[in-house]
Amino acid sequence: MSGPLDRFTVSRQMAAKKKIALVGATGIAGQQFVAALAEHPWFELARLVGSERSAGKSYGDALCDPRTGARRWWCDVEPPAAVLALEVEHSRDFSADGVDLVFSAVEADVAREIEPRLARSKPVVSTASAFRYEDDVPILVPGVNWDHARLLPLQRQRRGWQGYLTPIPNCTTTGLAIALKPIHDAFGVSKVLLTSMQSVSGAGRSPGVVALDVVDNIVPFIPKEEEKVARETRKIFASLGEGGLRDADFLVSATCTRASVLEGHTESVSVSTEQPASPEQIVAALRAFDGGSGLPSAPRRWIIVHDDPFRPQPRIDRDAEGGMATSVGRIRPDPVLDNGIKFVLVSHNTKMGAAKGAVLVAEYLYQQGLV
Amino acid sequence: MSGPLDRFTVSRQMAAKKKIALVGATGIAGQQFVAALAEHPWFELARLVGSERSAGKSYGDALCDPRTGARRWWCDVEPPAAVLALEVEHSRDFSADGVDLVFSAVEADVAREIEPRLARSKPVVSTASAFRYEDDVPILVPGVNWDHARLLPLQRQRRGWQGYLTPIPNCTTTGLAIALKPIHDAFGVSKVLLTSMQSVSGAGRSPGVVALDVVDNIVPFIPKEEEKVARETRKIFASLGEGGLRDADFLVSATCTRASVLEGHTESVSVSTEQPASPEQIVAALRAFDGGSGLPSAPRRWIIVHDDPFRPQPRIDRDAEGGMATSVGRIRPDPVLDNGIKFVLVSHNTKMGAAKGAVLVAEYLYQQGLV
Amino acid sequence: MSGPLDRFTVSRQMAAKKKIALVGATGIAGQQFVAALAEHPWFELARLVGSERSAGKSYGDALCDPRTGARRWWCDVEPPAAVLALEVEHSRDFSADGVDLVFSAVEADVAREIEPRLARSKPVVSTASAFRYEDDVPILVPGVNWDHARLLPLQRQRRGWQGYLTPIPNCTTTGLAIALKPIHDAFGVSKVLLTSMQSVSGAGRSPGVVALDVVDNIVPFIPKEEEKVARETRKIFASLGEGGLRDADFLVSATCTRASVLEGHTESVSVSTEQPASPEQIVAALRAFDGGSGLPSAPRRWIIVHDDPFRPQPRIDRDAEGGMATSVGRIRPDPVLDNGIKFVLVSHNTKMGAAKGAVLVAEYLYQQGLV
Amino acid sequence: MSGPLDRFTVSRQMAAKKKIALVGATGIAGQQFVAALAEHPWFELARLVGSERSAGKSYGDALCDPRTGARRWWCDVEPPAAVLALEVEHSRDFSADGVDLVFSAVEADVAREIEPRLARSKPVVSTASAFRYEDDVPILVPGVNWDHARLLPLQRQRRGWQGYLTPIPNCTTTGLAIALKPIHDAFGVSKVLLTSMQSVSGAGRSPGVVALDVVDNIVPFIPKEEEKVARETRKIFASLGEGGLRDADFLVSATCTRASVLEGHTESVSVSTEQPASPEQIVAALRAFDGGSGLPSAPRRWIIVHDDPFRPQPRIDRDAEGGMATSVGRIRPDPVLDNGIKFVLVSHNTKMGAAKGAVLVAEYLYQQGLV
Repeated sequence: MSGPLDRFTVSRQMAAKKKIALVGATGIAGQQFVAALAEHPWFELARLVGSERSAGKSYGDALCDPRTGARRWWCDVEPPAAVLALEVEHSRDFSADGVDLVFSAVEADVAREIEPRLARSKPVVSTASAFRYEDDVPILVPGVNWDHARLLPLQRQRRGWQGYLTPIPNCTTTGLAIALKPIHDAFGVSKVLLTSMQSVSGAGRSPGVVALDVVDNIVPFIPKEEEKVARETRKIFASLGEGGLRDADFLVSATCTRASVLEGHTESVSVSTEQPASPEQIVAALRAFDGGSGLPSAPRRWIIVHDDPFRPQPRIDRDAEGGMATSVGRIRPDPVLDNGIKFVLVSHNTKMGAAKGAVLVAEYLYQQGLV
Repeated sequence: MSGPLDRFTVSRQMAAKKKIALVGATGIAGQQFVAALAEHPWFELARLVGSERSAGKSYGDALCDPRTGARRWWCDVEPPAAVLALEVEHSRDFSADGVDLVFSAVEADVAREIEPRLARSKPVVSTASAFRYEDDVPILVPGVNWDHARLLPLQRQRRGWQGYLTPIPNCTTTGLAIALKPIHDAFGVSKVLLTSMQSVSGAGRSPGVVALDVVDNIVPFIPKEEEKVARETRKIFASLGEGGLRDADFLVSATCTRASVLEGHTESVSVSTEQPASPEQIVAALRAFDGGSGLPSAPRRWIIVHDDPFRPQPRIDRDAEGGMATSVGRIRPDPVLDNGIKFVLVSHNTKMGAAKGAVLVAEYLYQQGLV
Repeated sequence: MSGPLDRFTVSRQMAAKKKIALVGATGIAGQQFVAALAEHPWFELARLVGSERSAGKSYGDALCDPRTGARRWWCDVEPPAAVLALEVEHSRDFSADGVDLVFSAVEADVAREIEPRLARSKPVVSTASAFRYEDDVPILVPGVNWDHARLLPLQRQRRGWQGYLTPIPNCTTTGLAIALKPIHDAFGVSKVLLTSMQSVSGAGRSPGVVALDVVDNIVPFIPKEEEKVARETRKIFASLGEGGLRDADFLVSATCTRASVLEGHTESVSVSTEQPASPEQIVAALRAFDGGSGLPSAPRRWIIVHDDPFRPQPRIDRDAEGGMATSVGRIRPDPVLDNGIKFVLVSHNTKMGAAKGAVLVAEYLYQQGLV
Repeated sequence: MSGPLDRFTVSRQMAAKKKIALVGATGIAGQQFVAALAEHPWFELARLVGSERSAGKSYGDALCDPRTGARRWWCDVEPPAAVLALEVEHSRDFSADGVDLVFSAVEADVAREIEPRLARSKPVVSTASAFRYEDDVPILVPGVNWDHARLLPLQRQRRGWQGYLTPIPNCTTTGLAIALKPIHDAFGVSKVLLTSMQSVSGAGRSPGVVALDVVDNIVPFIPKEEEKVARETRKIFASLGEGGLRDADFLVSATCTRASVLEGHTESVSVSTEQPASPEQIVAALRAFDGGSGLPSAPRRWIIVHDDPFRPQPRIDRDAEGGMATSVGRIRPDPVLDNGIKFVLVSHNTKMGAAKGAVLVAEYLYQQGLV
């Protein structure tokens, strides 16, 4: 890829940055977009959109707690001064005029109302689940199903839109899909069982996971999560043909639990492959995986394979490659499944699994001339 | 069972209590035995055995930290005054004269040396793994394989001992075996996959799990644990025939992780059954399970089935029935396995999974005339 | 006290139970009242009052999560079947006819509206802060200022009410006041400095403390808490004379922090006494303290003094005496203060510091003929 | 300072790096030195010293767990390849020939034996407490008492050594001393009371703090810690005159507790000043503090003052300025003390409070021509 990409990169550097609108800017997911876009080489945050509570205030003021006046900011990267000065617009009145791309970080119910309106005129990349399961809507996972972007022109055409709508998956699906990709390509995946031990940040802050529920505890259920993981994984590995997407025919069985971890989902995964594969072959396939380069947010190493059996651990490994790597370890045979392989993975749920992952998707779309 | 058992119980009440020796008395596992035997109706702790460091001191003094003089006691039940006054004997010199039964709470390497010596003359019930895998040694799990106690007379005979040696399993195996038992009896188990999220107490205190490793974290590996779970489960479900035990022929695939939980192991389990079974049938089988009654430490409800999908949780459910119940929830089909069923269980690793479980085994052996 | 009390207790046993209404019944504080009143020998929960959301439903139904149907119950004692069957009444329409006493477990803003209305006809014992600082309203702490109950007839008279209103203090104040009481009685308290490390349960569940804020963390601020502790402590130790309460003249300096602890507030306290006192004298005074007996919810030992310097610890000591004891340790000179003494205490914030403490207050009022 | 310093820096860049030996290299404290010295502009790790267990192995091999072969490395910075290849020397045989400076990261008992031996020929900067309280040994805290380095030539002379020995303080003292420094300089400190909530990393890993002790808990005692904080603080603020150090005459009262925090000590501090000072004046003094510049490990901002009352928090603030800043917030009057001021601080116990702080001390000594 390096030749054309380099030319793209060079030409990119001479162009003006693309203007970005962010819907749901004040929530924790929105803040993560602000952090992911700080000093971005291609994109520039130009408009911020929020609810009634924030509209008309500067972003800096909208972030302040009314009781104490203190700023409520939850990311490790500080918000740029220019962004703090932007006025937050009311989502009801917002039209995406003058921007090139919209990121949406709202909840599913709000997304259902606002995203189609904006997608009529602009590309919308969303973290919400509202439209993930519609036939002409791809769920793009960086490095896994870039080819599904070809569905977007069809979506435009079919809906009569100038823009389009493309959500990223649930954060639990992302790491799974990335780890399965090289295995599927090399050996074919026929069955997947997983148990996730998910971090509390996946649930946001309002109210998010209450400390009373997870200190000294495991919560064995996350509503709707298991269905999302199963359904989205099969759609992400769908083949895209004449008739659109045809879901992968492998089955996924997920048990999703919540653990006392701040960031980073851990997943214990067993896979049955179509062709037999030794652990060494799986390791080699994972290590060789390259999800694409030349994109500013792409990790250098997409998958980091650990030989140390005590790894990956969410606290130690979640921030590898700026939270954009998927860390995999404990690769060994699963004696119960046919051609069974099992492993443990860690994926950063609020970086590759959320805003930074969505920005990476947008980078790809822009590189492909779709923005 | 109630008729003969009641007679046994009545006659029991008129007899003197059986005298018990406890080896490894000062460690955390030993302390749990002291707690489990406090006010026991049948058993009386008569002799305590420890290492050089404790030998010759009263138990109360042996528990004290030499630096601060403060008592280091880790159980929720206080040690009885009579036990605190007992002198700790040196394990090197200890012979089990005058006691009826020995509980052993030492580490595997110490067990390997000391347990056979004691078993020459007395029954030894142990939490150590040292002898679990020998042919003539049953791994007794309360309510699951009581019939394997029939192996003990053979062991005596074969080894020329007057006593015998019977270990309980690894604490992760215990809850799994209890939950599988009614499923296996009713539908036949053919495959088992599980991911455990284990509490820190399973590793004891010396050094045990270091806080630096589990706060805000999951550790994806516990050395030797997965092999133990697989091997022990198959032996526990072995058929006992003329030629001794023949391991169950189902396969077990375990991934064992450590979570930031104090007590109570959580296990996400998928099972393939020989006969098809609906979730309702599985629920009915689990609810109907009775592992035996008339034993002082037996739970009233052996398995508690939860309809609330947020249960079981280790912090909330571990102490059900005094830590002797296995709590099961989220029973639903597993779409990936043939005749697949999956569920989540919680089992108290330092009560049913350790000392209290061992005491329950000893109660059964006594009831059967084997003590 | 034993003579008259015994007679009271005897006569009590022959009388019908007093009928209790509980306002704010479905919240976590309300649930703690239900737990505290289960099988109460003197009181019977007769009416439950809630908001619009719960009104008209049985208590059992009102506790259920609408999404999953699962009961949301947060106490270690299960709710009695008779209480689950009670219909929740709407707080707007509720009048306390037919009950003898009202417990109020609502937030301050709701309390401000509803409590005076109910106090017009009935005694109201409240956990809310709304009226704590009014001149004719005592803040009763069990065993500390029982004599302030004499203010209640004055309150009745002044306000022209048949009932009265008496709040308990903030949960952080309770343990402090109990530990200071015997010191103040014996040596006079002139200055108090404290740093609290408070549990997450003090903030309830809606939203309560978010896990993202306390895992691997300390939060150094709890809004309004420090002012409450200082102001309430001085009022609790007020002298009650002709002109009403006159605040104690010692100063209190509090720093209140939130730690990753589920239940039980820990407080590091330094005290300057008027008369010099050795640590041994302080220990003796604390050990001798008896806050009153003959009340069903009173602890047998009001203050438990630890010699072990590693105690008290919230997880180990919070449940001493059913959560009704105050545990104190590390009693030693404070070299910085005049006549300085310092210590660490643990008090159960949702038992003695909330519903169970309020029930104990009501027991006293009833014993004194004030219910 | 900028003029001469710049010249120093320039000349530095032209010189060869100073050669460093590290004693206690494989432990967690030693690893932190390796991390602190990675890519250091002035210092180069040339020799590593360990115990019998490690001697003769390469550092990379010595870090490996014998059971699993996996590397046990606990820092966020990876060890440089050149360091991994160094052979670990036996501490018994080690003489510091050919190195310019020794860092010692061993425990107090080992330090007592080995440090004087090495100090005979070389400067030794140590994290151990063994010699902190000797008359001619300064306890250097970066930015606080640089002038105490003048004691080192006296120490040399008095002991007849060519080198010298200079320990850094206990990690709890460090942040306290830095926060007190500008207050003491401007207003005079006369009394200090503090309660610390310390992280588990302060205790290392062998065994360190056991998870069973801190999950859902606070431990109210850390052996010897409070005495160290009091004694060291007074020595750090000692005046250095003809007769050597004369301890500061203010008193320090410390209560040291352990909380469920991984890194970063939080301290709630009350100070009585000699001259009255408003919170605004204290804020101004703290903000203006500059502990020195031109040293590679020095923070840009030595003290970060927060207006947000929810700050500082250990998880959020510990890594400010690479773990070298002291974060202070909640500055307000203390109503109990004369000229009372109180605040909360967070200091990184294993960075500024340990290896990185020791490296900063060594940088200063080198800058001053003492290495």
